[in-house]
Amino acid sequence: MAAEAGWRAQVYQVIFEADTPAGKLFDVVLLWSILLSIALVLLDSVAVVHNAFGGWLYGAEWVFTALFTVEYALRLLSAPRPLRYARSFFGVVDLLAIVPTYLSLFIAGSQTLLVVRALRMLRVFRVLKLSRYLREAMVLRQALRASLPKIGVFLYTVLTLVIIFGALMYLIEGPERGFTSIPTSIYWAIVTLTTVGYGDIAPASVPGRLLASLVMIMGYGIIAVPTGIVTVEMSRVRDADSITTRVCGHCMREGHDKDARHCKFCGADLPPRVAATD
Amino acid sequence: MAAEAGWRAQVYQVIFEADTPAGKLFDVVLLWSILLSIALVLLDSVAVVHNAFGGWLYGAEWVFTALFTVEYALRLLSAPRPLRYARSFFGVVDLLAIVPTYLSLFIAGSQTLLVVRALRMLRVFRVLKLSRYLREAMVLRQALRASLPKIGVFLYTVLTLVIIFGALMYLIEGPERGFTSIPTSIYWAIVTLTTVGYGDIAPASVPGRLLASLVMIMGYGIIAVPTGIVTVEMSRVRDADSITTRVCGHCMREGHDKDARHCKFCGADLPPRVAATD
Amino acid sequence: MAAEAGWRAQVYQVIFEADTPAGKLFDVVLLWSILLSIALVLLDSVAVVHNAFGGWLYGAEWVFTALFTVEYALRLLSAPRPLRYARSFFGVVDLLAIVPTYLSLFIAGSQTLLVVRALRMLRVFRVLKLSRYLREAMVLRQALRASLPKIGVFLYTVLTLVIIFGALMYLIEGPERGFTSIPTSIYWAIVTLTTVGYGDIAPASVPGRLLASLVMIMGYGIIAVPTGIVTVEMSRVRDADSITTRVCGHCMREGHDKDARHCKFCGADLPPRVAATD
Amino acid sequence: MAAEAGWRAQVYQVIFEADTPAGKLFDVVLLWSILLSIALVLLDSVAVVHNAFGGWLYGAEWVFTALFTVEYALRLLSAPRPLRYARSFFGVVDLLAIVPTYLSLFIAGSQTLLVVRALRMLRVFRVLKLSRYLREAMVLRQALRASLPKIGVFLYTVLTLVIIFGALMYLIEGPERGFTSIPTSIYWAIVTLTTVGYGDIAPASVPGRLLASLVMIMGYGIIAVPTGIVTVEMSRVRDADSITTRVCGHCMREGHDKDARHCKFCGADLPPRVAATD
Repeated sequence: MAAEAGWRAQVYQVIFEADTPAGKLFDVVLLWSILLSIALVLLDSVAVVHNAFGGWLYGAEWVFTALFTVEYALRLLSAPRPLRYARSFFGVVDLLAIVPTYLSLFIAGSQTLLVVRALRMLRVFRVLKLSRYLREAMVLRQALRASLPKIGVFLYTVLTLVIIFGALMYLIEGPERGFTSIPTSIYWAIVTLTTVGYGDIAPASVPGRLLASLVMIMGYGIIAVPTGIVTVEMSRVRDADSITTRVCGHCMREGHDKDARHCKFCGADLPPRVAATD
Repeated sequence: MAAEAGWRAQVYQVIFEADTPAGKLFDVVLLWSILLSIALVLLDSVAVVHNAFGGWLYGAEWVFTALFTVEYALRLLSAPRPLRYARSFFGVVDLLAIVPTYLSLFIAGSQTLLVVRALRMLRVFRVLKLSRYLREAMVLRQALRASLPKIGVFLYTVLTLVIIFGALMYLIEGPERGFTSIPTSIYWAIVTLTTVGYGDIAPASVPGRLLASLVMIMGYGIIAVPTGIVTVEMSRVRDADSITTRVCGHCMREGHDKDARHCKFCGADLPPRVAATD
Repeated sequence: MAAEAGWRAQVYQVIFEADTPAGKLFDVVLLWSILLSIALVLLDSVAVVHNAFGGWLYGAEWVFTALFTVEYALRLLSAPRPLRYARSFFGVVDLLAIVPTYLSLFIAGSQTLLVVRALRMLRVFRVLKLSRYLREAMVLRQALRASLPKIGVFLYTVLTLVIIFGALMYLIEGPERGFTSIPTSIYWAIVTLTTVGYGDIAPASVPGRLLASLVMIMGYGIIAVPTGIVTVEMSRVRDADSITTRVCGHCMREGHDKDARHCKFCGADLPPRVAATD
Repeated sequence: MAAEAGWRAQVYQVIFEADTPAGKLFDVVLLWSILLSIALVLLDSVAVVHNAFGGWLYGAEWVFTALFTVEYALRLLSAPRPLRYARSFFGVVDLLAIVPTYLSLFIAGSQTLLVVRALRMLRVFRVLKLSRYLREAMVLRQALRASLPKIGVFLYTVLTLVIIFGALMYLIEGPERGFTSIPTSIYWAIVTLTTVGYGDIAPASVPGRLLASLVMIMGYGIIAVPTGIVTVEMSRVRDADSITTRVCGHCMREGHDKDARHCKFCGADLPPRVAATD
């Protein structure tokens, strides 16, 4: 029993951690396998390549799927709480990364879904111990999370706008000029408001172009809103990051930098800074 | 008389407020009705759906219109100041949301205007008591309102630019290459400056492409202006947030900085700042 | 002599200022004349309108030109320093707004240049005494002027990039796929980098699309640079605006708000604020 | 030997520096030669020009190449550490600016690579001693360098997204509607997410347009992320600008705030701050 636990712990260390040489080697091999397997899926979708090397690619797909299946089983077996891993983001992605190949035995063409493996690429931050990148990713995530409610309000308002503009455009231009239905016109409104502008549907009448100009200028202007939201949140995260709450014991004033050891106002010793846990 | 007032007050509570279970239920049912009625209008505009289910959709439209008419009447009856409600933003929208169906008896095709009901979707913020979202919406609105004069100046200048660029392009490319008139060329200038770029009208001559390049780079650059305006205003709103709500006990005025120890208006001692919990 | 000076001063007051009822009336009439004359030029360029009302529009053009010529002469006569007015921005625009009609006697089609009158529309800020808008316009101008050197460096680098990307694309795709020359390819690079994307020229080969993807992502990213520049400059203008340089005579500390009458640190009286002249 | 060193030093002063009249003249002549030689390469790629003046342009190309070769040799000879120059950014660019012409003796068409000379245009900042622009360029570079890790995380996430969206679109629309393979669909996803929107490939089915709408709104929104990153970093660089360069006379460390009176590291008195003149 202790032996088994030891065997499990060793596997856990290799697969889930990256501090030992074996763990690091495993992670690097895994990352390259993921990249290679994604490249194969992409190549297989090109008709010329598929016709020439379809068989080889199909074989390679099964080899990678077998490898990833073994890996998934080992993760399940060695994790202290298998269910918790299975329900985590990467647990679900790891499962989704092998299912499509088995599905392809029953449903033709489902191998394309293997690109979900691309999500496994996000492991790179954890795997390569790029702690600096990790911290940047956390700053980004924190700022984006704080922006979410405001961005939610913004998107809801945008959605209301494109519905109304789409319907107006359907009234003005009508089905004979490409605006075949209100949903199609809403699609046009989104294409225009986001300044993508494919040009597959475009107004041709004078009132239609007037309305389109309004939508474009509005889209050009309101892109400022999400940008402003995210910028302000990022600067908030940064400010919170850079100023300590230490108080000088002598003159009781705050606002000292992280690297300060003496009060900048009266010169007294500052208390040692306690590292923040965030 | 008191009974009638009581009846009115009860209706008011159910329709206009959302604190009681009945009020909450009413609001949720209303929101779903709005969403469903909008979906029907959208679907009815699709030719295939209209041909198959046109009759059913027409009937459903009348049902929803009847419901919304009753609701509008109840709002008018129960509101303490009916005229004030009728003139408010949502009062007007509520009326516009039922008029098109009645109009369709006289003018064919006016049902499309029912999408104005989409504006009623904005009630969601109030209805679901998403106070957190409400506060975010208010911050956004406050920042946008403060940005309006600057954005007005900006839009006016942009309008002047597109008129001049459009006329120049009309001179350079001329009617035979799609720039059929100055208004059309102004439309092209707006499409280009806002980086939408449909491609339905595009310059083909060398001087035309030079001018177009200038317009594009200008549009690419000046998008920075509304973005800068909104970002600065948002950060101002946020800073205003960081101003304390301390009141001077002597002259009763607010607006003191965090580090203030004396009232900046009368010089009296300020009460110590209590850390805010938000 | 004094009478003439008096006559001049009166004309000056009516034409250049807007404080008296007569001056205000003149300005409003002038603005509407400018708007109307621009509208006529735009309409005249539409073939249908030109064919139907060409003669009337030609006549109206001469009426407006006569009016603006008289106005320009009066400005020159009444201005204390006529040369200084003639060389100022609006002086040059006022002249350019009448020249094209006279030119059209010799060169056909030059009337289109009358749209330069659009620049006169910028008078609206001064004319309507929209001091609030004027102040916003000045804040914008100040921030943009401070951004110019950085934006110059940015544009120069972008120019270098589009030349190199354009030449690479010309090598990769070649004349047979629309990239007929390096200048044309540079035009494509500008269309792509600024995210306009007409689609009249688009890569079709695999390496061409790879390079195009690089240009797009680069363009998507570096739009952040002018935005960042302008935002930071605007926030700098705003900060400079909101903090006075008054010093407390008692504790000699700075950083007081505009509306402060007492030092927020020691409570002493602050010296009265002298209104800034900017 | 001393004479040779003196000869070298003189050449060095003329070629590498721009303080003496001779050095300034050399730099101006060099810049114009670079601009002219780039213009010739651009013109030579236009078929009409090539057919008419191909011979002349070929000759001019060799003249410029000869000049730049001599210049490169002199730089190598006069530089105190030739290898260090040869490995520097401008050293490599100077070499690349002459190689293509010699290559064209063996490989036809390689002259197009001469546009790499465009990179030499960046010398303008150094050459014309535009110290103000240099400083702005440094501020930009510093802000961009500080943004790189965050932008790296952002780009990696965007890359993952476009792979997954591209594959989904390939599944939904399929080869018969232009989405011929997953790489092509990824190209479409990049074109859409960056809001370029050529329109050469565009979804036509309802689910395809729904997914496209999602990608567009996402692209419209996440452009806020690089913008926010760069803006915050620029404002950080600017704030750092406002940090004084005072050195503590006791522990010799810098980085003190403007309002600091005591060294924050050792507590000694700081010298009074002298107002900067910028």
